[in-house]
Amino acid sequence: MSAPIDFYFDFASPYAYFAACRIDALAARHGRTVRWRPVLLVGLLKATGVLPAPMVPLRGPYAERDCARTAQLNGIVYRQPANFPALLLAPPRAALWIENEYGADMAAAFARRCFEAYFTEGVDIGQDDAVVRLAEEQGVDGTRLREGLHSAAIKEQLKTVGEEAIARGVFGVPFTIVDGEPFWGFDRFDQMEQWLTQAAATKAAA
Amino acid sequence: MSAPIDFYFDFASPYAYFAACRIDALAARHGRTVRWRPVLLVGLLKATGVLPAPMVPLRGPYAERDCARTAQLNGIVYRQPANFPALLLAPPRAALWIENEYGADMAAAFARRCFEAYFTEGVDIGQDDAVVRLAEEQGVDGTRLREGLHSAAIKEQLKTVGEEAIARGVFGVPFTIVDGEPFWGFDRFDQMEQWLTQAAATKAAA
Repeated sequence: MSAPIDFYFDFASPYAYFAACRIDALAARHGRTVRWRPVLLVGLLKATGVLPAPMVPLRGPYAERDCARTAQLNGIVYRQPANFPALLLAPPRAALWIENEYGADMAAAFARRCFEAYFTEGVDIGQDDAVVRLAEEQGVDGTRLREGLHSAAIKEQLKTVGEEAIARGVFGVPFTIVDGEPFWGFDRFDQMEQWLTQAAATKAAA
Repeated sequence: MSAPIDFYFDFASPYAYFAACRIDALAARHGRTVRWRPVLLVGLLKATGVLPAPMVPLRGPYAERDCARTAQLNGIVYRQPANFPALLLAPPRAALWIENEYGADMAAAFARRCFEAYFTEGVDIGQDDAVVRLAEEQGVDGTRLREGLHSAAIKEQLKTVGEEAIARGVFGVPFTIVDGEPFWGFDRFDQMEQWLTQAAATKAAA
């Protein structure tokens, strides 16, 4: 079995949502699995001194149009949430807590459900109540999660995942790393797929 | 005949070079022509308060890798020039002067030749001598061009093209506008092609 694809994402990013809709199937086509790694985009941007796109003149309006068009042309349901752009802390903390307690598959399922709730149903996943409810749907103990969300350990863990990401060259989301090769953006999924195909061909020839 | 595609580019941008390698054929497939519009990326970035990618931590090394990979996966010859990144003033001024004196087709041919010389042969197109030589290859009067390059009128014209671009929402290169729809980046050429296909279908159905 080849190494998993590392998938760095922030729940508030539309492009990360598009990536989340496609990453598992893409990986499966190449016999790979996905390691879902939640990070805070704001931390990555701080490390590089870059402003979030919605706050940059001209880029902001373009990004809004580009998101709608990208969703449409890829057949992805997308509605810009009312609270957008937002700093969403509860979902990445919950995802890490669920991974610790229930394993990576459950955490990934929770992450996919959060993205869907935020970008198609307009659920405010910045609220603990919403995150707990979505986790409970997946079979998570909501009472324990609600406590875990605010534990110092989880906050520290989220910070560590972000620092490790930066140390690996991650500066935006979505960001994937395949056998050491970095791909930034949903618009690099085509290149990632070509890369995986080449990697398989090289392996077969070896 | 449908409206031309406006193509904004800076001669110093690898992604603009990739776009320049593909834009004419893409347009022709949809019965369109291309208006080649040279601008200075530095002016666009100043308007938005953004640093050029090579100067941003983490993004710089990534961009270098991404350029090499994008060229390879698209079958485009690409060698990062020795003087890179650079502020290239002579080529856009020359392109506008040639357009004024010889027409748009000659200016586009000159622009394509400049990109090729810079990104495949390592020619320092920031130098007047190099630009004049490349223009002479196309049949341009080099003596007159050498004077024209430094005229106040050409400097003013380049500034105006940049201001008009910003007024239309252009904030980076390559940037194309098709019937009012904006596309930023060589990585949006797929979407531009889908858009042109849809536009033709809508027209045929009308």
